[in-house]
Amino acid sequence: MSLQVTTLPNGFRIVTESMPGIESAAVGLWVEAGARHEQESQNGVAHFLEHMAFKGTARRSALQIAEEIEDVGGYINAYTSREMTAYYARVLRADVPLALDVLADIVLNPAFEPREIEVERGVILQEIGQALDTPDDIIFDWLQETAYPGQPIGRSILGPSARVSGFDAGDLRRFVTEHYSPGQMILSAAGAVDHDVLVRLAEPLFAHLTPRPRLVPDTARFASGERREMRGLEQAHFALAIEAPDYRAPDFYTSQVFSGALGGGMSSRLFQRLREDRGLCYTVFAQSGAYFDTGLITIYAGTGAEEIGDLAMLTIDEIKRAAEDMRPDEVARARAQMKAGLLMGLESPSQRAERLAKLLSIWGRVPDLSEAIARIDAVDVGAVRAHAAQLLDKSGIALALYGPIDRAPYLSALSERLAA
Amino acid sequence: MSLQVTTLPNGFRIVTESMPGIESAAVGLWVEAGARHEQESQNGVAHFLEHMAFKGTARRSALQIAEEIEDVGGYINAYTSREMTAYYARVLRADVPLALDVLADIVLNPAFEPREIEVERGVILQEIGQALDTPDDIIFDWLQETAYPGQPIGRSILGPSARVSGFDAGDLRRFVTEHYSPGQMILSAAGAVDHDVLVRLAEPLFAHLTPRPRLVPDTARFASGERREMRGLEQAHFALAIEAPDYRAPDFYTSQVFSGALGGGMSSRLFQRLREDRGLCYTVFAQSGAYFDTGLITIYAGTGAEEIGDLAMLTIDEIKRAAEDMRPDEVARARAQMKAGLLMGLESPSQRAERLAKLLSIWGRVPDLSEAIARIDAVDVGAVRAHAAQLLDKSGIALALYGPIDRAPYLSALSERLAA
Repeated sequence: MSLQVTTLPNGFRIVTESMPGIESAAVGLWVEAGARHEQESQNGVAHFLEHMAFKGTARRSALQIAEEIEDVGGYINAYTSREMTAYYARVLRADVPLALDVLADIVLNPAFEPREIEVERGVILQEIGQALDTPDDIIFDWLQETAYPGQPIGRSILGPSARVSGFDAGDLRRFVTEHYSPGQMILSAAGAVDHDVLVRLAEPLFAHLTPRPRLVPDTARFASGERREMRGLEQAHFALAIEAPDYRAPDFYTSQVFSGALGGGMSSRLFQRLREDRGLCYTVFAQSGAYFDTGLITIYAGTGAEEIGDLAMLTIDEIKRAAEDMRPDEVARARAQMKAGLLMGLESPSQRAERLAKLLSIWGRVPDLSEAIARIDAVDVGAVRAHAAQLLDKSGIALALYGPIDRAPYLSALSERLAA
Repeated sequence: MSLQVTTLPNGFRIVTESMPGIESAAVGLWVEAGARHEQESQNGVAHFLEHMAFKGTARRSALQIAEEIEDVGGYINAYTSREMTAYYARVLRADVPLALDVLADIVLNPAFEPREIEVERGVILQEIGQALDTPDDIIFDWLQETAYPGQPIGRSILGPSARVSGFDAGDLRRFVTEHYSPGQMILSAAGAVDHDVLVRLAEPLFAHLTPRPRLVPDTARFASGERREMRGLEQAHFALAIEAPDYRAPDFYTSQVFSGALGGGMSSRLFQRLREDRGLCYTVFAQSGAYFDTGLITIYAGTGAEEIGDLAMLTIDEIKRAAEDMRPDEVARARAQMKAGLLMGLESPSQRAERLAKLLSIWGRVPDLSEAIARIDAVDVGAVRAHAAQLLDKSGIALALYGPIDRAPYLSALSERLAA
């Protein structure tokens, strides 16, 4: 078995999978803390912290962090999601120990120098500006906020500029103390890695950390609602969400297959109806995302000011119709796409390391690929139709619109059509 | 040797590289024709043609094309660049023959149904709208236009909406006749592929094509200039280009190493000075791109309305300074990043297939990786400094600015500072 998991006495987990024929390795630390672990007054601090990890530690300046990894041709980066913060590197085989040492240092020993905090605040404010200048990025923040109003999971990851402008070292340290417990950390590596060597290297870095109780975020409650932002853009941007199963729900894969058949590929219903038959959009897709206690099927399309009415109504029709007349061949195709996508993703060390960390976080173990395949194969057309019908009965839809949207239908019209 | 090249009597080339341990394959057709092969009246037709390939052939409808590939869990896509149009698929081992058959069919036998052309016109007009709504996308079109004014290589790939609105089947057929000769096509595959099998399958599909003379596009002539577009965006977007070596120039790798050290990674000068020291931007990078007869070092950053002056002047200072005091350790790091990036890229079948096609197109053979490594290793600090100094002496800079840029310096001020 190339897959191995070790748990240190303090709860810190190490998972690796070696890949024959691969000479590089992806190695990263996944921390089970993200934007939904923040209090409202903290919104943006998980992401700010992720940035500050790269701004110097007791042993390394920001420049040294970058230089040590790039001297050996590697790269290092990080991201913050609503439930996780990940710090990861990709290096050649011989440089895995270096990558691990740097990752441990930046995550465990950030210096939080006041001057560096001020500089990085400027960087993050620019990052917020960049997101606002990217309609098909910011619209998903608005959709999330609409789907989970007034809740941690509904808040943006970057946080509002006003809050970001106020964070100091104390705020950063508090979030670390609250959420960076060893039991919330997973070291994951894939590619040219040796499990025993990695465990031996990780022990002196992580085994001394004191476990602390986990602060569980508020349970998510999906709500129907809409957000409309008029602006003189070229396109009317349309995003819609329906509540979907969480990661561990029995119908998780059913929902994945349903969203794939609805809008996952070129043969999907939304792509065929909106783009291929009607030419209403260039980008259109449906995808199914999940969290620990909820999930969202999200549909996005960019269209013209004249076409937004048609596009919105046709999208609703396709969702409804899928519950009624989804065919076995469409379901089989969506299953095939999911399975092949899984297999191809595993050929990339970076994707594989991320998958290992996420599976371990969700399940407390790493289910064999065959389990996922079997669960996908078990999804038949009856299950998909029933699932779609039940989704529509539940909590309604959340809607976000951005651009020249004065001719876009209101949520009430879309909900009526859905219920009709 | 896992790398094999076969040339059919009509000039059609087949290149493959099998990869042990990989169960999927990337397979694609690279056509040596892109936006710079268009006459001005044709601008956008190469890209329109790429779209129409997916809209049906004599044997397959648009839906069948998508379904055949997605039934087996594969995906199929295409892109148009200024010098190439690529049609590619990723499938599991057993489905390579299917992928090849579909790719050949869509490239060689597109139906160009008038109704489908009308629908696809709408899709492309939406694609143009999407690009216009993405500042850090459209600014590169404007930069290209500024750097190569009034020339085919300076025109946008999507083409202007007015031209796209007018194309018909005759325009598409004419471009195919002019540029889709078998001598301009490369079938490239990497991963779980067998060369002899692929050649045997390709012969009946491509060997009958009649070679035609190649129409060589106009030689590119770089020019200094600027384009300023005021708009009420969150960020002031800044893009700058300097002329750089073409693909086959002796100093191609020197330029790559230079741009890497200047703005390629987190340890690069621009990242350190503009983002890490000053917090002026979130995104900043320099990259070196090449064509058959020219190249561009491109720098991009997004900043604030108040900060654009500082950012522009500091960028110029860093370019100048690099020519004077670039250090050996910075050059060594840029070399290490390039080499490791090459090695890691080769672990992806898709990236490898693309690299094979491009190398074969550029060199008429596939140079061994060791040749590239040796040429990168040969770049020392003296070469980088001399190269940078010579770049600055040459043709000046091209500049594009977008957003709240009323306080941005003019090209004349930047050029003066560069020359000072």
